[in-house]
Amino acid sequence: MAEIGPNTRLRSSVFYEETVKEGVTAFSPYNRMLMPTSYGDPMAEYDRLINGVSMWDVSVERQVKIKGPDAARIAQVLSVRDLSGIQVNQGKYVPMCDHRGVLVNDPIVLKIAEDEYWLSIADKDILMWSRAIAAERGLRAEITEPDVSPLAIQGPKAEEVAAALFGDWVRDLKFFWFRDAEIDGIPLKVARSGYSKQGGFELYLMDGSRGPDLWNIVREAGRPWGIGPGNPNPMERIESGLLSFGGDTDDNSTPYEAMLGKYVDLHLDDGVVGIKALRGIHAEGPARHLLGVRLEDYAPRPGHAVWYDVMAAGKKAGSMTNGCWSPRLKQVIGFVLVGRALRPGDTVEVIRNGVATPGMLCDLPFL
Amino acid sequence: MAEIGPNTRLRSSVFYEETVKEGVTAFSPYNRMLMPTSYGDPMAEYDRLINGVSMWDVSVERQVKIKGPDAARIAQVLSVRDLSGIQVNQGKYVPMCDHRGVLVNDPIVLKIAEDEYWLSIADKDILMWSRAIAAERGLRAEITEPDVSPLAIQGPKAEEVAAALFGDWVRDLKFFWFRDAEIDGIPLKVARSGYSKQGGFELYLMDGSRGPDLWNIVREAGRPWGIGPGNPNPMERIESGLLSFGGDTDDNSTPYEAMLGKYVDLHLDDGVVGIKALRGIHAEGPARHLLGVRLEDYAPRPGHAVWYDVMAAGKKAGSMTNGCWSPRLKQVIGFVLVGRALRPGDTVEVIRNGVATPGMLCDLPFL
Repeated sequence: MAEIGPNTRLRSSVFYEETVKEGVTAFSPYNRMLMPTSYGDPMAEYDRLINGVSMWDVSVERQVKIKGPDAARIAQVLSVRDLSGIQVNQGKYVPMCDHRGVLVNDPIVLKIAEDEYWLSIADKDILMWSRAIAAERGLRAEITEPDVSPLAIQGPKAEEVAAALFGDWVRDLKFFWFRDAEIDGIPLKVARSGYSKQGGFELYLMDGSRGPDLWNIVREAGRPWGIGPGNPNPMERIESGLLSFGGDTDDNSTPYEAMLGKYVDLHLDDGVVGIKALRGIHAEGPARHLLGVRLEDYAPRPGHAVWYDVMAAGKKAGSMTNGCWSPRLKQVIGFVLVGRALRPGDTVEVIRNGVATPGMLCDLPFL
Repeated sequence: MAEIGPNTRLRSSVFYEETVKEGVTAFSPYNRMLMPTSYGDPMAEYDRLINGVSMWDVSVERQVKIKGPDAARIAQVLSVRDLSGIQVNQGKYVPMCDHRGVLVNDPIVLKIAEDEYWLSIADKDILMWSRAIAAERGLRAEITEPDVSPLAIQGPKAEEVAAALFGDWVRDLKFFWFRDAEIDGIPLKVARSGYSKQGGFELYLMDGSRGPDLWNIVREAGRPWGIGPGNPNPMERIESGLLSFGGDTDDNSTPYEAMLGKYVDLHLDDGVVGIKALRGIHAEGPARHLLGVRLEDYAPRPGHAVWYDVMAAGKKAGSMTNGCWSPRLKQVIGFVLVGRALRPGDTVEVIRNGVATPGMLCDLPFL
């Protein structure tokens, strides 16, 4: 292990100083920013998320703002999910593909106004991608990265904290819908959203200079429920079967391989990037799919985020993309990207650092 | 400072294990890989580069391989420099722009064959960018990232090491030209190239499984000249006035602002991405330019790679993009990106961590 810190290729978040004060111990780069990945006590962080409430610096979820007369068309041509019914103040989880039908992102698309959409993106340069497609087609909109930094509140007690902060109206927000709000003069959008299955909200901070203020206001409001710092949690997200774009996908992963087939609307017009290719892939069936694996390894150990070989009948059959100790299942589990011939119930071996461990494939999610 | 290590968003190089054995102490992300940035003794690393020979893991210089009947056209529409005269086995340093005329990269374009070009890229997702433009225009080529990992040998004694490795023919290689070679069965392209002004070569390793072998062969061949590990050196590159794309540029930097105007060929056809915008920018003159600054600070201190405010007549006039102690000038120097009204000889103040230091603007390079 070596050191990492902010530089011009690795911007710090508007919450950075607060996360340092909270004792952040590790980062991963994500969208050219430092994303906190641990505060040094993984089990306490997991426990807060599963049983209490956790606050996360997820400002690495950058926004691609598309504003102009063709904004709606640009959002649609970039998305293989039908956006025709989306309403102002609504978000939708959307696969985006390249012309080969290969995933380039899985953002939340937020409709801000009739002529304004935000793409709240995973780790890939969708700002440049969107500009390329729009400019090549002569579609009219300004495409920029606005001063917006999401802070997530996640866990079963997140709603109590959000209600304490903003009022009881947050309890009525539907999933992925959002509303403008203000607290102590800080402009926000409050969305029911978040990268966990434990429930919660994302506060889209719209004034970066108020990052520390917002962090501390949330920290204070959450005190009665024992709020503490966290981050997208590898153990919880694997147990919950949440896809990590770029973590569980590669340069050949289609939505059908990545559990996102249900979000592909093949009836969309041919102008939608990737839709023609996806019709062919859908007809043929994908070559691979993502499944779970439960390993015969019952010792708590650190997670991993490098791909390991998966062997079946003595041959390489795919990769284990991410793995972790599951505190609830009490064994090591992970995602595997394997050929379609392999099915839940089949046995495989996963080669981790030269050691083969048997495991059984299973459906996702685990829990 | 927190820890960093390989994960799915941060691939390790084929030379990674060797750099760890050499004692690498810090990395920066670059093209989603770990780029070594220090081996713990900056002055020794600088000295080897200036007076001896240094070997660098620069496999983060990823190749975008464009192969097919329209490869030459794709390379040209992506490049604002005229590539019509480029020959097989020749490379050219080329600015690439988006439709606004803003830099998206400054790769070396290598012509491998009549129907094959490689872009040896700086830190930005040009694989996705190239695919977007080619696909939108119906241009026919496969665009992929091949198994190619450059290893650089830099410094005044680099030619001796390269000649010992490959023979005296390397002495006749012209700058940015390259030739196929093999050593111990390892397939390479040997180019006279490198991100320093001290001279040297880049060995484009074409079989990643042989990374450790190549590292050790070069290490052994360089022993008589005192070779040791290094990396693109912040002090040398600033003294030498070499641009760091993404380090000294932002989302509004045109080639004219970034000292690359001489590589823009405005006579190119309108199909070249950005060329129409650049004609307008050229006619108006750029809003900003890159200059050097010599600070009234004569103490050796660590370099920085976060942007600092530059003040002139009490107002913010731009940014110091990167700075370092110059061992040869014996003062702190840096690059500034400032409004065009400011000129070499003008005095400014640079605000570093809240402290203002006076300095004088100057032409680049420093040395």
